[in-house]
Amino acid sequence: MRSIPPPTFPPTEKTLTSLEGVRASGVRAGIKASGNPDVGILAFDAPTPVAGVFTQNLFAAAPVTVCRTHLQATGGNIRAIVVNSGNANACTGDEGLRHAIAMADRVARGLGCSREEVLVASTGVIGVPLPIDRVLGGIDRAVSELATEVEAGRRFLAAIQTTDAFPKEAFEGPVAGVCKGAGMIHPNMATMLAFVGTDAEATPAELRDAIVPIARESFNAVHVDTHPSTNDTFLLFATGMREAPGWREPARSVARRLAWLIARDGEGATKVTTIEVRGAASDSAARAIADRIAASALVRTALFGNDPNWGRFVSQVGNAPEVRSVAGLRCILQGIVVFENGAPTSFDRAAASKAMATEDVSLVVELHDGAGHAVLLTSDLGYRYVEVNAEYTT
Amino acid sequence: MRSIPPPTFPPTEKTLTSLEGVRASGVRAGIKASGNPDVGILAFDAPTPVAGVFTQNLFAAAPVTVCRTHLQATGGNIRAIVVNSGNANACTGDEGLRHAIAMADRVARGLGCSREEVLVASTGVIGVPLPIDRVLGGIDRAVSELATEVEAGRRFLAAIQTTDAFPKEAFEGPVAGVCKGAGMIHPNMATMLAFVGTDAEATPAELRDAIVPIARESFNAVHVDTHPSTNDTFLLFATGMREAPGWREPARSVARRLAWLIARDGEGATKVTTIEVRGAASDSAARAIADRIAASALVRTALFGNDPNWGRFVSQVGNAPEVRSVAGLRCILQGIVVFENGAPTSFDRAAASKAMATEDVSLVVELHDGAGHAVLLTSDLGYRYVEVNAEYTT
Repeated sequence: MRSIPPPTFPPTEKTLTSLEGVRASGVRAGIKASGNPDVGILAFDAPTPVAGVFTQNLFAAAPVTVCRTHLQATGGNIRAIVVNSGNANACTGDEGLRHAIAMADRVARGLGCSREEVLVASTGVIGVPLPIDRVLGGIDRAVSELATEVEAGRRFLAAIQTTDAFPKEAFEGPVAGVCKGAGMIHPNMATMLAFVGTDAEATPAELRDAIVPIARESFNAVHVDTHPSTNDTFLLFATGMREAPGWREPARSVARRLAWLIARDGEGATKVTTIEVRGAASDSAARAIADRIAASALVRTALFGNDPNWGRFVSQVGNAPEVRSVAGLRCILQGIVVFENGAPTSFDRAAASKAMATEDVSLVVELHDGAGHAVLLTSDLGYRYVEVNAEYTT
Repeated sequence: MRSIPPPTFPPTEKTLTSLEGVRASGVRAGIKASGNPDVGILAFDAPTPVAGVFTQNLFAAAPVTVCRTHLQATGGNIRAIVVNSGNANACTGDEGLRHAIAMADRVARGLGCSREEVLVASTGVIGVPLPIDRVLGGIDRAVSELATEVEAGRRFLAAIQTTDAFPKEAFEGPVAGVCKGAGMIHPNMATMLAFVGTDAEATPAELRDAIVPIARESFNAVHVDTHPSTNDTFLLFATGMREAPGWREPARSVARRLAWLIARDGEGATKVTTIEVRGAASDSAARAIADRIAASALVRTALFGNDPNWGRFVSQVGNAPEVRSVAGLRCILQGIVVFENGAPTSFDRAAASKAMATEDVSLVVELHDGAGHAVLLTSDLGYRYVEVNAEYTT
């Protein structure tokens, strides 16, 4: 049944340093016990428009607070982004905030800009004070090693990873992006960090305008479990070094690809299922219904088992308070109609099960309540999920 | 790690037939391929006050529709309840409704009452027409075998079970109750059926008044997965054959014990965790926060693994839109404070893990938003859950 091996995605041709005006680095600062790279910097040659969306968790980590404050202080014109992995600097109180500010300050000194022109992101264990001396030492080395080669971009990517099974990169047209996140919380709360940029020109206001719908259709459409992290951060920047008016569609496309890679890397995941709800009373109703399906452990185990068990999808639709009528409900699994006119329909179960044995599964749910539409990505739930999440002991 | 064996609860001393005015039976009608008992009847010596609460699923099964109609038609004065297992008579259209009515009709003929005085409940596979001839044949035999012995009550209980790993009975004072349900949907949607009665006196209106809060604190407080079934039914009756004014507290207590047994029988469950939220802005806010914790696959795998992973509980609290402030958040796991004043606190992790290795775990979450309070029961999520739910193929 577990015939799909974990993917080993080849590196893309380009990465963030392929964009004009971007330098990057990644070093081993000794935060991670593994000795893997854990401090990275993205630096811009000039003040660069950046927009961000962040976790809505009330326990937002110190670096998220610093990002929000610095974006506001500078109007979204930023010189660098510093990231550490191995420690999330979350639930760390006032000391954590001082540490996050110290990280920005250290980069600012190295680059000769103001502290407010530096954004900070962290990922790793929570509730543990940052080993700030090691972090600051790592920052000094990372500043000195900033470079424009593809390899420098790869070192940055390596430095932001935690439990990722493979690197996550995408590019299209004038847009490149990287992210980390295994779509699941481990050991406490895994973080989604995404950095997408273009060397086309855009104002901070244009980026702020674009980032919300892009996030909704990409990173916010990944429903692997129900725990958004304390540190989730998505930054979108535009260096303006190149003429390329059409950056919005490529940025959307890059973000969606990165989100798919995150769902694919749900620990123990064997596939990504795209759940599309059509004909709901509103877009938010469609989203709530899709969310209810995606959140179900029973749906996710059926996906793992390649079981075309329409009862599990249909029961979630029937339970959603946002649904007005199920009379015309239709469910289409991998192109096969498995439920129609609000009732079971005959279909070839063996063929449907076979069609589900792929890493990219589609489930469409059609209602007749209105024009509401939503798309969510979810990973499946198998033995490895339990193993990773139960056998870890804090 | 899996040191807790599945429970084998001894039968209780009394069951429904221990109540004055109640006869019961259970027969093999041939609905189940296993040949196990699958048609049961509870009959009252006189018209008896009954109140019911039912699934909110839009795909409510035909027997639920019949119950609602018959309770309304009779004002809640009922002569019998007929139950079949092995087939839920859900998603079966007009034919299903005719079948459910035919079941009530057949019992009414046998007992010499009106069809409206008979309630119907079904549980089993959905979307498959009821083998109505077998069911009616079974009803005839069940009517002829109605008896008042404890064994007759046990035969009724056996006839309503599906995937239950153990029988579920409880009694206290003048109240007895039985239920079925493995707290999980299998093969499509498993059903919770509960029948709780007293031989004390109560009017239909008094029962209707009592059943809503009792259901909220018992069967509606079980959060094993997020799929309420199409057939969920909880009936509360009072034969009035005995003087016992204090039936409400015993009924609440019996219903809560039955609900705990359902959670304990979540397929693959090794324990039941009681999640109590105190100090939320309102009771409904408390319920929503408890629900978010109970629904989390990450929380449930941590419970399975005896992992005192406070980050998983806390992140769900931080994500709940119903939470106003997490500044004073406190989490108490098995009596051990693991998070305090909105921040991690030091505790003995090994001792906490050891304290979790029991079949009855307590998690208390305290906020300072108001006086809202809620209690939910959830089962843990282990390998066996995946096995049962992924390896079954429709």
